[in-house]
Amino acid sequence: MSVRSTSRVRVRYAETDQMGVAWHGEYFAWFEVGRTDLLREQGLTYKELEGRDLRLPVIAVEARYLRPAHYDDMLEIRTQLRGLSGARVSFDYAVHREGEAEPLATGMTAHAAVDGRGRPRRLPTELRSLLA
Amino acid sequence: MSVRSTSRVRVRYAETDQMGVAWHGEYFAWFEVGRTDLLREQGLTYKELEGRDLRLPVIAVEARYLRPAHYDDMLEIRTQLRGLSGARVSFDYAVHREGEAEPLATGMTAHAAVDGRGRPRRLPTELRSLLA
Amino acid sequence: MSVRSTSRVRVRYAETDQMGVAWHGEYFAWFEVGRTDLLREQGLTYKELEGRDLRLPVIAVEARYLRPAHYDDMLEIRTQLRGLSGARVSFDYAVHREGEAEPLATGMTAHAAVDGRGRPRRLPTELRSLLA
Amino acid sequence: MSVRSTSRVRVRYAETDQMGVAWHGEYFAWFEVGRTDLLREQGLTYKELEGRDLRLPVIAVEARYLRPAHYDDMLEIRTQLRGLSGARVSFDYAVHREGEAEPLATGMTAHAAVDGRGRPRRLPTELRSLLA
Repeated sequence: MSVRSTSRVRVRYAETDQMGVAWHGEYFAWFEVGRTDLLREQGLTYKELEGRDLRLPVIAVEARYLRPAHYDDMLEIRTQLRGLSGARVSFDYAVHREGEAEPLATGMTAHAAVDGRGRPRRLPTELRSLLA
Repeated sequence: MSVRSTSRVRVRYAETDQMGVAWHGEYFAWFEVGRTDLLREQGLTYKELEGRDLRLPVIAVEARYLRPAHYDDMLEIRTQLRGLSGARVSFDYAVHREGEAEPLATGMTAHAAVDGRGRPRRLPTELRSLLA
Repeated sequence: MSVRSTSRVRVRYAETDQMGVAWHGEYFAWFEVGRTDLLREQGLTYKELEGRDLRLPVIAVEARYLRPAHYDDMLEIRTQLRGLSGARVSFDYAVHREGEAEPLATGMTAHAAVDGRGRPRRLPTELRSLLA
Repeated sequence: MSVRSTSRVRVRYAETDQMGVAWHGEYFAWFEVGRTDLLREQGLTYKELEGRDLRLPVIAVEARYLRPAHYDDMLEIRTQLRGLSGARVSFDYAVHREGEAEPLATGMTAHAAVDGRGRPRRLPTELRSLLA
């Protein structure tokens, strides 16, 4: 069973646009909240990983928007590990309005492992063990 | 030959993150600048389209990040029409550091045509003619 | 005793800049979370107020930044009513890292009451009673 | 005569909120564009200053919003030096819709000089000379 977690975020006024819905680019900030929480629940914070000279820059993203999210909606960001290799990790996301079965949006982010200077490196064994 | 345009944006400090590069979600704001300019150059502003009760909410996005963009970089957002149907339109994007042949990133956005209440409608004939 | 409330927000990666701290403009999104929560705790949501054709656009802001907030910090946004008149309302804010006595930042926002078309109107009696 | 400059920014869709106007916190990103351009026109980029181990974190801001800015408006950010001391610098801003005499908003930012680790330092002589 793959590693997963759920984060709650409430849509902020600043995150809406003049269409009256949450701006589509904000979902990537929420996905970031999702994977930060997933790591934390596994006992490892991304902040600690940065302290160990690891960075996980985003190399690819995708999102599908099925129905809009509105100001003040309480959302669930459901994150799960999608793939893991020596120097790559990726996550899948589903954004639900709290209590609703059908997602508002789904997405994916893929990450490379690099050091503080942007040079490729391998994912730490501890991180790979926690996510495997 | 498909409709295309080029926009210039300079990376703002607010758009960087603590990795020292432009945050990956900001590219979707730049893509928005790109398609706004593409429409304007065709003689039709998105603002006018909204005045005619048309909205083009994003229904899907993709991006690939090849190399980072940095604070104060002058970027070219190269936008071109990808597809057009009765009620859908999509665009492709490439983000180049000014004067560089290889892109920093590429992406896609797909849009549905809806009215001000979010109900599906057809793309106006004028818009379809301008983009065809 | 003036109306007050406390909101918790965790600093997102997207909210940092390349100085390695939370970008100073983000505090205004957090202040917005603070006053949204203050109203909710008084039994009235800003969303409902918008449904009654009230808008509270910001007419003035101030902030002082004493110490930086960092990625993944859990913050408390302490909001309290500052002033209330027929057509104006203002709030004071203090941002604390959770469990710390000294604030990281303080701020103020002032708001005018307008209708959906931006015309001045009086604050609803119910809102004034709840905040008084 | 104090150092000043004018920057042009067009309001992005992502910068609007559901009130149909530019979100008040975005002005601080535009002010940042303004002071970046002011320095550049004096022959010194903020990017170079960072390369010399100088940071200018914001320690205080103020803004007054007189009339709203709308999506696709072309704005002028008029920046001028407000004050300069051994370890502090501040700027004033006025945001005008292009071609309009009355500003939409005015503001101020104050900055401390620190090194890359956040320790207070003096402003470089060259910077002080250019701004004086």
